[in-house]
Amino acid sequence: MNSYQINHLQSYKEKNKNRARFLIQCHDRQGIVAAVSQFLFEHDANIIDSKQYTLDPEGGEFFMRIEFECANLENQKGVLEKDFQQVAEKFNMSWKLMYVEQFKNMAIFVSKEVHCLLELLWEWQSGDLMGNIALVISNHENAREIVESHGIPFYYIPANKDIRNEVEEEQKKLLQEYNVDVVILARYMQILTPEFVKHFENRLINIHHSFLPAFIGANPYKRAYQRGVKMIGATSHYVTNDLDEGPIIEQDIERVSHEDNEADLKKIGQSIERSVLARAVKWHLEDRILVHENKTIIF
Amino acid sequence: MNSYQINHLQSYKEKNKNRARFLIQCHDRQGIVAAVSQFLFEHDANIIDSKQYTLDPEGGEFFMRIEFECANLENQKGVLEKDFQQVAEKFNMSWKLMYVEQFKNMAIFVSKEVHCLLELLWEWQSGDLMGNIALVISNHENAREIVESHGIPFYYIPANKDIRNEVEEEQKKLLQEYNVDVVILARYMQILTPEFVKHFENRLINIHHSFLPAFIGANPYKRAYQRGVKMIGATSHYVTNDLDEGPIIEQDIERVSHEDNEADLKKIGQSIERSVLARAVKWHLEDRILVHENKTIIF
Amino acid sequence: MNSYQINHLQSYKEKNKNRARFLIQCHDRQGIVAAVSQFLFEHDANIIDSKQYTLDPEGGEFFMRIEFECANLENQKGVLEKDFQQVAEKFNMSWKLMYVEQFKNMAIFVSKEVHCLLELLWEWQSGDLMGNIALVISNHENAREIVESHGIPFYYIPANKDIRNEVEEEQKKLLQEYNVDVVILARYMQILTPEFVKHFENRLINIHHSFLPAFIGANPYKRAYQRGVKMIGATSHYVTNDLDEGPIIEQDIERVSHEDNEADLKKIGQSIERSVLARAVKWHLEDRILVHENKTIIF
Amino acid sequence: MNSYQINHLQSYKEKNKNRARFLIQCHDRQGIVAAVSQFLFEHDANIIDSKQYTLDPEGGEFFMRIEFECANLENQKGVLEKDFQQVAEKFNMSWKLMYVEQFKNMAIFVSKEVHCLLELLWEWQSGDLMGNIALVISNHENAREIVESHGIPFYYIPANKDIRNEVEEEQKKLLQEYNVDVVILARYMQILTPEFVKHFENRLINIHHSFLPAFIGANPYKRAYQRGVKMIGATSHYVTNDLDEGPIIEQDIERVSHEDNEADLKKIGQSIERSVLARAVKWHLEDRILVHENKTIIF
Repeated sequence: MNSYQINHLQSYKEKNKNRARFLIQCHDRQGIVAAVSQFLFEHDANIIDSKQYTLDPEGGEFFMRIEFECANLENQKGVLEKDFQQVAEKFNMSWKLMYVEQFKNMAIFVSKEVHCLLELLWEWQSGDLMGNIALVISNHENAREIVESHGIPFYYIPANKDIRNEVEEEQKKLLQEYNVDVVILARYMQILTPEFVKHFENRLINIHHSFLPAFIGANPYKRAYQRGVKMIGATSHYVTNDLDEGPIIEQDIERVSHEDNEADLKKIGQSIERSVLARAVKWHLEDRILVHENKTIIF
Repeated sequence: MNSYQINHLQSYKEKNKNRARFLIQCHDRQGIVAAVSQFLFEHDANIIDSKQYTLDPEGGEFFMRIEFECANLENQKGVLEKDFQQVAEKFNMSWKLMYVEQFKNMAIFVSKEVHCLLELLWEWQSGDLMGNIALVISNHENAREIVESHGIPFYYIPANKDIRNEVEEEQKKLLQEYNVDVVILARYMQILTPEFVKHFENRLINIHHSFLPAFIGANPYKRAYQRGVKMIGATSHYVTNDLDEGPIIEQDIERVSHEDNEADLKKIGQSIERSVLARAVKWHLEDRILVHENKTIIF
Repeated sequence: MNSYQINHLQSYKEKNKNRARFLIQCHDRQGIVAAVSQFLFEHDANIIDSKQYTLDPEGGEFFMRIEFECANLENQKGVLEKDFQQVAEKFNMSWKLMYVEQFKNMAIFVSKEVHCLLELLWEWQSGDLMGNIALVISNHENAREIVESHGIPFYYIPANKDIRNEVEEEQKKLLQEYNVDVVILARYMQILTPEFVKHFENRLINIHHSFLPAFIGANPYKRAYQRGVKMIGATSHYVTNDLDEGPIIEQDIERVSHEDNEADLKKIGQSIERSVLARAVKWHLEDRILVHENKTIIF
Repeated sequence: MNSYQINHLQSYKEKNKNRARFLIQCHDRQGIVAAVSQFLFEHDANIIDSKQYTLDPEGGEFFMRIEFECANLENQKGVLEKDFQQVAEKFNMSWKLMYVEQFKNMAIFVSKEVHCLLELLWEWQSGDLMGNIALVISNHENAREIVESHGIPFYYIPANKDIRNEVEEEQKKLLQEYNVDVVILARYMQILTPEFVKHFENRLINIHHSFLPAFIGANPYKRAYQRGVKMIGATSHYVTNDLDEGPIIEQDIERVSHEDNEADLKKIGQSIERSVLARAVKWHLEDRILVHENKTIIF
């Protein structure tokens, strides 16, 4: 980590040391917002931002992200968590309380193509990704230099499908050692086992180089070229054990024309992949994403 | 109004007869959301949608739009309005309570070019603009047939700058007679007097055929062509007495190239104007727009 | 046809009475452009616009659209066509010579949803679609009034899969009677027989309400909603006998969010469908589209 | 330059060693395309790509970019240039013959904000910018490490308006020494003298952080925030001595909302600046830009 990045972090943490966020989900009924906002008022917290969504207004599912500021938060944490338990029980809520200052630890998995990794390093270094890049794991050596030049540990773990379990053992040991919260597959071209995927449910972010659900699977640019589409896209999603079928976080597209050959589509697409993945990771780090029935709610 | 449109209206009104919205603005402080949501809870109302925004989290301005459903709303109106007065006073709020079923009355002003008018008629007929088009006023006759074929009164009032006051007298009489809430300048090419503008503050929507603040004033497509821009746009805004300087509601753009001459820009631009104005009007009718210091907050 | 539209047509035809276009396709080799441009020079024609594309520069397929102006074109047609035969033979070209003034006759097929039809009527009336809308055929009555009010013949032909052949007989008779060049399926919800499709190869334009190849087949908005995509789209393509697999002419998309339910997606999508289909039809009428191996080249 | 980049270059140069491009401009008349394509045919050249544009079909200005392949180009250069002189004289053409293999030498000027510089380094390293980054000049030291790590010379030349002439003397000496063809102002915050600008006419590319002609001059993001625009943009243009009024090469925009404060606009804008400048530089390096009367034609 360079001094530039350290400054970003310190000023960010200082600014946010009294900030926290509730992520809430429950069946909709009258009084939820009143109860939550009353709770915050009674605990001397000021609401900074609040977003909510009800899946189907007639008695459906209710989702909320509410960010607040609370003087002397460090010492209030225990009280907040304990007291909120009562509110949560009343409405049978699933809930999380996240402290803004507590950064998430990311692990980035990458294979040969490094454009998505570089974008994440870039955004992170510029202070746009507020989290720790704890380590980078790759089945190729070519990203080592750039990663280590950022002061980030780089681990080369060769991988292929025959040694999948051994590889994942090694990876999981590292993820545990670095206390990793979220794994980012920045064009990591290996399939992960169902156990691994399950363990990181809704914490395993992939970038797929097509506008899903078009071109699920291998070689999407080649197939896009062959189909003669007039736009190509990229999709970031949480990984599930159905290939490319997990909850979509973000998508984007660019226009292409008959003049663009397969290599052109790939170039254009890489630029889309970079920005789509970076947005998805950013939203995850900021606790903006709730998952419900294989879809995301983005607050 | 045809039977298609009448069906839309009836089903919409039936569906929304118990729905209302608060629009709230005040200085930010702790407890606002708690008070409002507690108020709704106590009045047996269910929050359907709630959006809020604080201009500057450190003690700035607070804005809120909260839509709710309340059984037997028709008979609750008096109580709601009276009781909310206490909440409002406590926080020194500006506020409005809007009943979804009560449609706003629109007047559309148009000159020779009818594309924006036609888009509004189209959206209205398709059930996308939930309001009444009370009347259309034009300084040309060419839109009469299409307007009257929709069962909407059409008034031809010739206009030029020498007779501005007389023209506006006639217009104002009609606007009063039809009980008009919002005036839409759908490419109406006459300047309005400061008195008229003042009277319809934040209720007078214009479409300007450029990406403001570029090309303020006359002939924006011609000037865009001469400048050689690579994108053209359109802007919908509330009219103030500074030409094209009022609060921007919505903007959009399209790419153009050196192959597009001035006439092409105009064609491309008309399509942008249509959709930008339609969105702005829709948001106004749905009470999604708050104005603060010459800017809009769009909920 | 109203007087407004008639004026458009007359001024357009007058302006273009000496204009024509070659559409050329052949194997690439040296000298093609030289031969074509030399031919035009010798026939006293001035090139107005010329676009070309070579599929694979190393000896691939060559495509060209060249528009030119030639004094007294009416009397030159025979000579041009006869003389160009020699150029064409030398390079083994497929070619067409199209006279700009000779409008194509369109038939529009529509079912219950009329938004695409209305867009085409609108564009046509505004002078943006330079062709004749010869007739509209529908398996519902609801578009009759609007179609006939434009002076366009409307035919109601009830349809279902059991009477497909009889229905198509009737349709084909009308298409022949009106000398139709291109059939536009503006949300016509009936499957056509392979014979019909074959007969109108590359002259049968469909709008599909998804971003193909995502959501091929029925209910794309419903499936898009269920999949939780963050963008929806529409695709216009020439119809082949592989459902939704024909050569793509144009696509576009809009962003959606978790707040948009299925009905919202449909509304947003209709607006995309309208503009995508209108562009595809426009390009077809202007002879801008060449088809090669299930892909389009758009000049 | 790393081995990765060297490989890109070598394969590119090898592939293109027989390729060249004519850029042509003259008054339009019959026979230009015939003459140029006949010339290429006679010199055994195969047209790879050809684009043309006539400003006003009725006797206006004609522009052409024609790329071709010619066996043994190295030895043909003299003949091509000499023989084309006759064609050019006949039509009174301005023309340039560019050999694809001969890379342009770029100088990048940068101040404190390095995001545009980094994007160019990134694109260059990935083989997307086919030119030489000959040197980087900055009035700050902070980009030195990253620039030198790419093997590119970095020169720190402190600058302010009082020493403008001395600074430019030093800069010009370096530009001459490195044989620089094009200067890129990648957020270089110093005004250049009219002499400097004149010397690099149509070879001096700037990125301005607004959607020109909106927000000409200083602090565009601040002013965009104050104006309450709903989209922000960036513009790349050739520099002239009218501030931000030179020929526009490329523009792009992104949506913003009332939730975005000035710092947010800046972040969002930086991403637009990066891609807009990179596209402009790419097109310049590929000889795709012709300038005519303060506008660009982009082929």
